[in-house]
Formats: sequence, C-alpha cells, structure tokens
Amino acid sequence: MNELINRQYYLASRPVAQPTPAEVPFRDVPVAEPAEGEAVIRNMYISLDPAIRGWMGEANNYIEPIAIGDAIRSSVIGRVVKSNSDLLAVGDVVMSLGGWENYTTGPAAGMNKLDEHSAVPLSNFLSVLGPTGLTALFGLLEVGKPKAGETVLVSAAAGAVGSIVGQIAKMQGCRVVGMAGSNDKCAWLTDELGFDEAINYKTCGDYEAAIGKACPEGVDVYFDNVGGEILDAALMCLNKFARVTVCGWISSYNDADAPGPKNLWQLVAESVTVQGFAVIDYMDRFPEGVGQLAEWVMAGKLQFKEDIVDGLDNVLPTFLKLFEGANKGKLIIRIPE
Amino acid sequence: MNELINRQYYLASRPVAQPTPAEVPFRDVPVAEPAEGEAVIRNMYISLDPAIRGWMGEANNYIEPIAIGDAIRSSVIGRVVKSNSDLLAVGDVVMSLGGWENYTTGPAAGMNKLDEHSAVPLSNFLSVLGPTGLTALFGLLEVGKPKAGETVLVSAAAGAVGSIVGQIAKMQGCRVVGMAGSNDKCAWLTDELGFDEAINYKTCGDYEAAIGKACPEGVDVYFDNVGGEILDAALMCLNKFARVTVCGWISSYNDADAPGPKNLWQLVAESVTVQGFAVIDYMDRFPEGVGQLAEWVMAGKLQFKEDIVDGLDNVLPTFLKLFEGANKGKLIIRIPE
Repeated sequence: MNELINRQYYLASRPVAQPTPAEVPFRDVPVAEPAEGEAVIRNMYISLDPAIRGWMGEANNYIEPIAIGDAIRSSVIGRVVKSNSDLLAVGDVVMSLGGWENYTTGPAAGMNKLDEHSAVPLSNFLSVLGPTGLTALFGLLEVGKPKAGETVLVSAAAGAVGSIVGQIAKMQGCRVVGMAGSNDKCAWLTDELGFDEAINYKTCGDYEAAIGKACPEGVDVYFDNVGGEILDAALMCLNKFARVTVCGWISSYNDADAPGPKNLWQLVAESVTVQGFAVIDYMDRFPEGVGQLAEWVMAGKLQFKEDIVDGLDNVLPTFLKLFEGANKGKLIIRIPE
Repeated sequence: MNELINRQYYLASRPVAQPTPAEVPFRDVPVAEPAEGEAVIRNMYISLDPAIRGWMGEANNYIEPIAIGDAIRSSVIGRVVKSNSDLLAVGDVVMSLGGWENYTTGPAAGMNKLDEHSAVPLSNFLSVLGPTGLTALFGLLEVGKPKAGETVLVSAAAGAVGSIVGQIAKMQGCRVVGMAGSNDKCAWLTDELGFDEAINYKTCGDYEAAIGKACPEGVDVYFDNVGGEILDAALMCLNKFARVTVCGWISSYNDADAPGPKNLWQLVAESVTVQGFAVIDYMDRFPEGVGQLAEWVMAGKLQFKEDIVDGLDNVLPTFLKLFEGANKGKLIIRIPE
C-alpha cells in the first residue's frame, strides 16, 4: 500500500486576533499509523464552529486548548481506510473528533458509526442532528427554560444554532425575535422560519430601542451567541426573573481586550440568571436529543441551512466567515472523495 | 397636642458618586397627619444597607427609585404615636418601610408589630432576623445551592450579610473562605465564626493567587457582595457548574463608569450560573426564614454583630462607612426615645 500523505492545518502559534495563515499554516505529513484499538479515516466533512477559535487560545476552556504544533481540532465525518480495532471495518462511515486535515487517526471507540444510506444526508450529523442542533435544543430548553407566552430573543439568529433555537422556541409557544446582520437574513427568519420579528442589527440604530420595540412585553429568555453591545442592550430589556443563556460570545473571540458588559447590574435589579453551558454537559442525553431533532426534521417542523464549501484548502478563509457573519446556516468543509 | 416636627434627610438630587450633604440634606417639617388606615411612628432604629445607594439612582431597580424631594427610604423600627387604623394602637412597636427621619407616616397594613418584651433585642429584627439574615439565608441556600463538601467563597465576609452567609455555609458542611479588609476582621471570621480561611484583600496581593491558595479544590459557590476586581479573580477560580450568587456589587455603586467584569467568558468555559436576586423575591417564605434564623440564634449557632450608631444626624457619614468597609456587622442608626 502506498504511503498516505496527510495535508494538515495546524496551530503554529496562538492567534492574537483573527487567525492568520502564519498562525494556522498547513503541512503535508505521512498519515499516522493506527495503534492497537485505533483507526484511520479519510475525512469527508469538517465542521466549522465558533468554539474552535476558543480552543486556539491559551485560556482554559471546557475542553483542552489545542497544543502548539497539533492539527486544528474539529468534528468530522469520514470513511475508515485502515482499522486496528474490531469496532470498525474499512469502508465504515463515522463521526469523530478530528481535525482540519485529510486523514484523522484516533481511537475507534471514539468514532460513531453513521448509516450512509439513511434518509438524511451525512452532513446533517454535523448540523441539525449534531452538536449544532443539540446546542440549540439543550441550551434553549434546559438552560433558557422558556414557557409558553414568554418572549425569546435570539442573537446571531440566522446562524446555525440561532436559527434552530428560534424554531424550537416557536414550538414552545413563545414570541420569538431574532437579530441578524442583513435584510435577507431577517426576511428568511420571519418569512420562512416563522420568527415573529427580526431586527437587522447593522441598520436598526440604537439596539436597546430596537429590542424594546420588537419585544413590547420585555424579554424573558435571551439566547446569546454574540455578547458585546447587543448583550448590554438586551440586559436593559429583561423582565423580572429573565434567563440569559450564554452559548458563546463571538464578538469578543478575536479581541482579548473587549470590555466586559456594563449593564450586569440588571442581574440584581431584575433577579436575572445568566448561565453558560457547553453541549457536552448534556452528553448522556445526546441520543434523546438527536431523536427529538430527527422527529422534527422528518415532520417538516425544523428547517435549517448548511453552507457547504468544497476543498480543505478553503478551511481558514471559510472559518473566518463565521466572525464576519458572512455565512447563512451551518458552515461545513467538504472534501470530495 | 403640640405639632410634631420631623427632621428628615431627603434626596435633593441624584448622587453622582458618594452621596454628599448637598445631595442628601435635611429639613425640619411638620409630621404628616395619618390618613384613614395610616399610622405615625416615632423611629427608634433605622437600617443602613448598600441597596439604599441603588434607590438613590435613576436606574430602574427591584423597587422604585426614591423620588427627588422624598425622604431617603429605609427599613425602620418605631413606636406608634398616632393611629388612624384599627390595626395599630399608640404604643405598639412595629417594623416598617420608612425613611431617614424621626417620624414615618404610612399605611398601618404595611407595619408589622414586634414584641418589644421578647428575648431578642428589637434591633435584631433589622439584622439577623430581618432583611439581612433573610438575604443571607435565601441567597445562599436557594440561589447558591451549596452541597456538603463544596467550597463556598464569600466577599465582604465580615459584613452583615457575608458573616451570616459563611456561618450558614459551614452548617451545610462546606469549606468556607471569606474575604475581608483587615486582619482583625479576618481573625473574627476564622477564630469566632468558624470560617476555614480568611483573605485580607487589602494586603493579599494578587486576588486570583490568594483565592486559589485558600481554595485548593476550586470554588463551587461564590457569594458576591462586591463585584469589580474580586469578581474577576473569583471567576478564574470557579469549578465546573459553579454558581455565582450576586447579592450586590458595592464596589461600583458610587462609580457609574466602573468597567464590567472581564472574565465572564468563564461562564461558557465552566458552565457557570450567575444569578442575581433580591430578598423580596422570597417574601412569601419570610416567616419560615425568620423561624429558621431564630432557631439558630437561640441555639447559639449563629453569631452576628450590630454596629449601632446613635443619632439621626449621623445618618449620612455612617451610611458612607458601608462603602469604605469601615463597619463590622450590621449598621443601624438608633434614635433614643
């Protein structure tokens, strides 16, 4: 068998702002041989998520930072090309923690077999039926705890997580208001996803006034994907006992000196709960969650978009689209077989 | 009957920093006559709490701000001198929402009769058996939710609320670490109240290092009375699923431009819950709470200090002691009869 060559984007140094090609260069190296219990997969899909930016940093996080010199970590779907484990056979398709690379070598026990002939496209297991959908589901229902009749505000609402959060909130009987960065995105939220209102944060002017107008009865749950000034404005619109669900603060990921929120005194004024979470907190409930999401998808109750870009060499510029709000739906790199 | 004259400290304008005598001057005015259903009390004790600084400001809060021209609002204990209600008779002693004034006129239904011949001094109903004790009890147990074996960190630990929080946390089987502003206060916490460790924040140097050393297994509950840099340091020491109970942020009450916390990204990194509360959220459970606190006091399990200053005319400089950390225990103004 010819030696397989692995193109791999790796962490040369920790980015100070937006990751650059000097900080995240590539190298072509031999594919690591599978040790006992390991397998090698040829990656077909690579998931691009805001959280990856956190793993590039030094700070401790819910999982270990990426070590200098290691491939950039990412969820992937791939096909087994070598196996040194009874758990997997060559040809199996699996979902796994992998990297920005053509091949990933790792423990077979951490690779979950997918049925490539099922009714749903494989890429869905990285989006609506994967970490993205599960983040929306558990973050909204378990952390935000919306009740029928309450108002739910979602930032980055046209994003992969936000668009699913809003639709699930509608199914709970809530008034749902989304914030997004273009009129097109806003129209998608209201006309196709059933949001009650959408705010174009790039043109709305004063955030607090815009949120106040779209949420005349105040905000009971704010599902926060962005932080920064929108969080400060949302804090001023919260009702008594409101919940702020912190999924991530993308506005500050590339800016270590971003100021903290100024309006946190609202926590005491309105007895507010601000709760951060990571989807892996709910790992023992993933099967239940995927089942619920699949049921909604099959019933046509949950729409979602995937923004699929071909070619591993597009991975870094495509990743940066997340921070520009340039994507609509879940960003995925596809590496054609 | 001679007309009664009421010396009253009132809000002339909203303070921009520490309230000054120009912003909170006094006036001598006739005591308001009681309307139908009202009574007049001669105040004996006036409670001084950090929250009063919030009520002097414009921002919306859990109760209405004090209107310009109105007496500074405060919990008081007084004796009925006139009654226009069947609920109260002249001579009764009551606890009520009142003001920084010699006499308060208000609805008799909002005045709760106290037994002045009970075993506990009347002033206790403004401290350990009043809003202070109830804030500590419900804030710690219902918001912080400490479990036996966990580590509880308390700021302003020698203060009225903090000192009670720490003792209740010890009764829950927790490791308890307090932060206070002098060696004397720290010695009181460890030697007399049973705290496991105390940190003198004025001399300890780097807060994060000091907290890390005193909490080798990390912090599970941070009961926050101060905000600011100590909050930022505590955030860095939190364990997974930690709870930050926000009782108040005294460090910023006199500084509208205080920067927000920088380390809130820890919320997502460690799936942390930050929850604000006000004791009135638990109003329907006050009888239960007072009963529990009284039981502990009678059994000698709960110590507390009252810092009682005589004379209404000392009210403003005494109030400012709160922000200098110059008090030890609950600050109360006594107006001798």
